[in-house]
Amino acid sequence: MTISDYLKAQATVVDAALERWVPAESVLPSNIHKAMRYSLFAGGKRIRPVLFLEASRAVAGEVAGAADAACSLELIHTYSLIHDDLPALDNDDLRRGRPTCHKVFGEAMAILAGDALLTLAFQVLAENSHIDAGRRIRLVQELSTASGTVGGMIGGQVNDIEGEGQAPTAELLESIHRAKTGALLRASLRMGAIYAGANDEQLSALSCYGEHIGLAFQIVDDILDVEQSSEALGKTAGKDAQQHKITFPAVYGLERSHAMAEREREHARHALAVFDGRAQHLCEIADLIVNRTA
Amino acid sequence: MTISDYLKAQATVVDAALERWVPAESVLPSNIHKAMRYSLFAGGKRIRPVLFLEASRAVAGEVAGAADAACSLELIHTYSLIHDDLPALDNDDLRRGRPTCHKVFGEAMAILAGDALLTLAFQVLAENSHIDAGRRIRLVQELSTASGTVGGMIGGQVNDIEGEGQAPTAELLESIHRAKTGALLRASLRMGAIYAGANDEQLSALSCYGEHIGLAFQIVDDILDVEQSSEALGKTAGKDAQQHKITFPAVYGLERSHAMAEREREHARHALAVFDGRAQHLCEIADLIVNRTA
Repeated sequence: MTISDYLKAQATVVDAALERWVPAESVLPSNIHKAMRYSLFAGGKRIRPVLFLEASRAVAGEVAGAADAACSLELIHTYSLIHDDLPALDNDDLRRGRPTCHKVFGEAMAILAGDALLTLAFQVLAENSHIDAGRRIRLVQELSTASGTVGGMIGGQVNDIEGEGQAPTAELLESIHRAKTGALLRASLRMGAIYAGANDEQLSALSCYGEHIGLAFQIVDDILDVEQSSEALGKTAGKDAQQHKITFPAVYGLERSHAMAEREREHARHALAVFDGRAQHLCEIADLIVNRTA
Repeated sequence: MTISDYLKAQATVVDAALERWVPAESVLPSNIHKAMRYSLFAGGKRIRPVLFLEASRAVAGEVAGAADAACSLELIHTYSLIHDDLPALDNDDLRRGRPTCHKVFGEAMAILAGDALLTLAFQVLAENSHIDAGRRIRLVQELSTASGTVGGMIGGQVNDIEGEGQAPTAELLESIHRAKTGALLRASLRMGAIYAGANDEQLSALSCYGEHIGLAFQIVDDILDVEQSSEALGKTAGKDAQQHKITFPAVYGLERSHAMAEREREHARHALAVFDGRAQHLCEIADLIVNRTA
């Protein structure tokens, strides 16, 4: 099986777990469950939950209930996309090739659907009966910190909004992305490690890997926004420049940005040495992140 | 000390705990912490955290760290107010006598501040070091369920929006309010009980009390919207009728609504019998809820 096929199969496992945790469209009130599911089941690659699963495998092989806990990351990621797309924020009409949540369900329902996904993420962790309460609480703590305002996803989003039009310095750029996309990717690895009972060495190796692929992911995202068409991306291309966002190509140019992504990939692979080959999939994921075209 | 003065003192205890958990305005990114604090420290009565504290006292007297965990309820309540006030939802310019969050900080920041308060609520519970992980996880579960879509606060909000203009039946009315305001009030009591290690009898007595004061609270809220001025309420009065909301006065008339609030108060007080007088403050709170004028 190629790594691509493997990851597709893993995404299916995550989808099945999400299917169990997100109320069906028939559950009242129907409309919000429709809106949540519309954005959640839109062909996403489930990269964060898959990273969680691979981290837990690197530590302890197959662990029961891991896919359920991994869902929490996709719930957070999806809520952040719904809210980011709102007219008051990025005002985006297109996401993964389809109209955004507020375009289909209206702004009020999109705001509430985001709130509901965020809330459900913590419920999913609290109700995981496969691990003890101590581990569950550590997961709640990791997820809430990584999603929050101080060095977390919301903080990065605020910096990003306030950074528009500011001088694009290297420091500002890195601080935005460490928080905006990096914190949740890093948490995906850490949470998988904690779920599987990692020791300190394993936890910090997976943290380090997570930081480097997080940065690589964002650099490549910025590059793709410049180099690819909206059709290939399934979302509006060229918006960064249009909104005067601070991006890696804007600060370093395209060529150097490509080189930086390569370097992050190498650092990420290096961090996995402690697993003695038991983290082969994570190695290949680092490659895929840097080589992707959408 | 009168019950009013007692409750003011308790609100001060809650404020001090919130002060510890919400990042200072000087913490970067500043603007979101300013927005969070603007809405959080706006003279609210902290009714939900105070109910948490009184439930924990009825069960076990003073319990260390209770005010910290109680904060989580105020964080959820405040996020819901910020999002409800947005133009896409209730479109309210005035809250507690001041311009609403989005009027001062803009819509983007108001959406993110709400998200951040919601996220912080779970972090506050996860990081409470006074109780064991088992109790902390039960609190996360109670709070996420009470705030969610199925019988919880968000579900009630959706029903409320979709109920506008529908025939105001008694069933629809009760289902909206049990979820929209009732679930979180009930959770306030349940969480305080769980925090203090309540047995099953105590937990269900406090649940029952919570359901009845929750309904009483909403009936009185609907009555005040008809009977009081915007100035007295510190928010826009008469909006329910204007928006064709389903309210208790609309379904039952004012006189019968007053009688229903009385009956709920009696049921609530009755539920406290199991505490043999150790829940005097909760009795008096039931009275205050029904007798309040704002």
